[in-house]
Amino acid sequence: MSECRVLTNLKGLLSPDPRAAWAVDRIPDAALALEGGRVLWMGRRTDLPAAFAGAPTLDGGGAWACPGFVDPHTHLLFGGDRSGEFNRRLHGVPYAQVAAEGGGIRETVRATRLATVDQLVADGEARLRTLRDRGVVHLEAKTGYGLELEAEARLLEAYGRLRAAGWSLDITLLPAHDIPAEFGGDAEGYAALVADEWLPELVRRQPGVARYADVFVETGVFSVAQGRRIFEAGQRLGLQPRVHADELSWTGGAELAAELGAASADHLMFCSEQGMRAMAAARVRPVLLPATTLFLGMRDWAPARAMIGAGCEVALASDFNPGSSPCLDPLLVLRLGCLQLRMTFEEAFTALTLHAARSLGREDLGHLHPGAKADILLWDLGDPLELVYWVGEAFRPRFVRA
Amino acid sequence: MSECRVLTNLKGLLSPDPRAAWAVDRIPDAALALEGGRVLWMGRRTDLPAAFAGAPTLDGGGAWACPGFVDPHTHLLFGGDRSGEFNRRLHGVPYAQVAAEGGGIRETVRATRLATVDQLVADGEARLRTLRDRGVVHLEAKTGYGLELEAEARLLEAYGRLRAAGWSLDITLLPAHDIPAEFGGDAEGYAALVADEWLPELVRRQPGVARYADVFVETGVFSVAQGRRIFEAGQRLGLQPRVHADELSWTGGAELAAELGAASADHLMFCSEQGMRAMAAARVRPVLLPATTLFLGMRDWAPARAMIGAGCEVALASDFNPGSSPCLDPLLVLRLGCLQLRMTFEEAFTALTLHAARSLGREDLGHLHPGAKADILLWDLGDPLELVYWVGEAFRPRFVRA
Repeated sequence: MSECRVLTNLKGLLSPDPRAAWAVDRIPDAALALEGGRVLWMGRRTDLPAAFAGAPTLDGGGAWACPGFVDPHTHLLFGGDRSGEFNRRLHGVPYAQVAAEGGGIRETVRATRLATVDQLVADGEARLRTLRDRGVVHLEAKTGYGLELEAEARLLEAYGRLRAAGWSLDITLLPAHDIPAEFGGDAEGYAALVADEWLPELVRRQPGVARYADVFVETGVFSVAQGRRIFEAGQRLGLQPRVHADELSWTGGAELAAELGAASADHLMFCSEQGMRAMAAARVRPVLLPATTLFLGMRDWAPARAMIGAGCEVALASDFNPGSSPCLDPLLVLRLGCLQLRMTFEEAFTALTLHAARSLGREDLGHLHPGAKADILLWDLGDPLELVYWVGEAFRPRFVRA
Repeated sequence: MSECRVLTNLKGLLSPDPRAAWAVDRIPDAALALEGGRVLWMGRRTDLPAAFAGAPTLDGGGAWACPGFVDPHTHLLFGGDRSGEFNRRLHGVPYAQVAAEGGGIRETVRATRLATVDQLVADGEARLRTLRDRGVVHLEAKTGYGLELEAEARLLEAYGRLRAAGWSLDITLLPAHDIPAEFGGDAEGYAALVADEWLPELVRRQPGVARYADVFVETGVFSVAQGRRIFEAGQRLGLQPRVHADELSWTGGAELAAELGAASADHLMFCSEQGMRAMAAARVRPVLLPATTLFLGMRDWAPARAMIGAGCEVALASDFNPGSSPCLDPLLVLRLGCLQLRMTFEEAFTALTLHAARSLGREDLGHLHPGAKADILLWDLGDPLELVYWVGEAFRPRFVRA
């Protein structure tokens, strides 16, 4: 018991209960026993087992203890930004025209191809520090602004260096984020290249770095059949699918995700009811990205309530990227989950913790039950609900050093 | 010229041009000559008139200079908060049920009636400090959570004390914010009491403190005729109308505001086209409150583009209040103006500066042209557009002490 510490002086503890769907523990005057960076015990302070009674204490300062946030969909690394293009869109210039003039994602691809690994790592570290200060303890991050083998490999190398530096992130290969300009719209040829040559080559060069593969399955980008081809190639390499699905139109992305046993299907503003049922049956987590809907000025918010009703373990994420979600703020995601996706506070909180972690196969994150990693946030608030209620406040957590 | 200072080392200056509708000056490498807290001159640094060349300089540190924000619709003072009720609403409990159980606005009225003037002043100062730190240099603030003469008088006294302490605010009497429970739904009787007795008594007790009168004109609250009666009583006392209009349904609030020559009509999610044209013709400023739409989870955003098309000088405000907009963040308002009301960055910026100031009769606020009050914000950004683009960032301005 030499390392054991008891975190006490807590106003309360709020944690999803990993044993029951959508259940959330709300324990006033709580305590946690921590050892070796793990939770040994949690409950009411007055119920603390005698075995922990003599352990040194950590002072919670009267705060609420919550698990850290998990962000299961980011495009963390890219070159440049797109603020100029953003105002052109507000001025009513259609994205198609911006893109035809070399803007849009192609602008980011150009800047990313020019970026060195050192630059990518430096930008990534700054963004990761920002996210951590706001309570994100683990995230998913995608390649996909290279769209050529060497640039995708540099992104993967940069992610590998960030992970080696101690950042907690899972990496997804997304060379099929768009059809590169030099392919002149040949989605079929590019999908074949990614599936047959690039994915194997990227995994060969940096084995064990990427865990997932992703494809932008969308009308005018990659078809369900092209997506399936890439995902199956990834699965043969040990990469589990995460699917950009049904974002701008229904194409059957959620159904494909269920068929493949994907870890997640993401976006889903135009998901079908059949797709929802299929995801629930296959335990594919829908990852909803409301900051993107806000930023694009869309009025079609993802049907979170219908997905919950269908039995899906809905997760929330930032979709951080320069074109459609320049958002590094988990609180904005949580707030939009409640205010526009119409989730309760407890549902949105579970979506950004437990379900987000599960979509990344991390059963030890997103809650504070025994066995959980002791990534504990302390919020100096009367109630965690205020994280959403005080809608314009940039609350920042304190951290427990267990 | 002894007091004159030249603000220089600016990346640029962004200011609405008060001489032309929706025009915005964007001047790189700008300078401003300031004297006695006023702008004497603004333009390119290289065009600085010889008369100012020898004046001491203020170092802008390479920032963008912008006018301070003006918030033309707040309910700054109230007792308690409503975070508990907020989550009940997220859980699907209808507002009518919350209200029938004594919650809703009546909870705030109860807490406000119990608050002392000292408590109200202390809460108000904390909120005003928060707003100022975020760039709000002037605001409008309403009574309306007293709903009885003495409680409304205490709110007015608290506002008067805040103004006497140097805070820059305009005060609005809103005893007709709701029908008090003790009136058992007798809107007619309560409106008569407010018009004939309370407004005269409040002005008699604290002459010169309030500048405006407001009424919640809405289906099931106060009719257009009841509103007119209160507003006309206010006008006889020198109080100009500001109208809570067409928020939850169309009732003709915008048309009434135009008929009365009101300073503003506010909310307007269900404004008619005729109402827009009437407001434009009467130079009534529509004050739009998108944080409220967000917080209430509504999908009916105010028709800002149609109002701009009709020739209205659209303004933006926070609507800060505990029930439907616990938002003290001008950047969230600016962002929602762009992202969901579909205003360009320049339009939203003008709406939260020049037009907001004009709705309060302040021609010397909301811009940086000669004669303007030198309430200058310095933003350490590559471009002011980033205030909206980096949608989750809590940017804070620096201030010029002229």
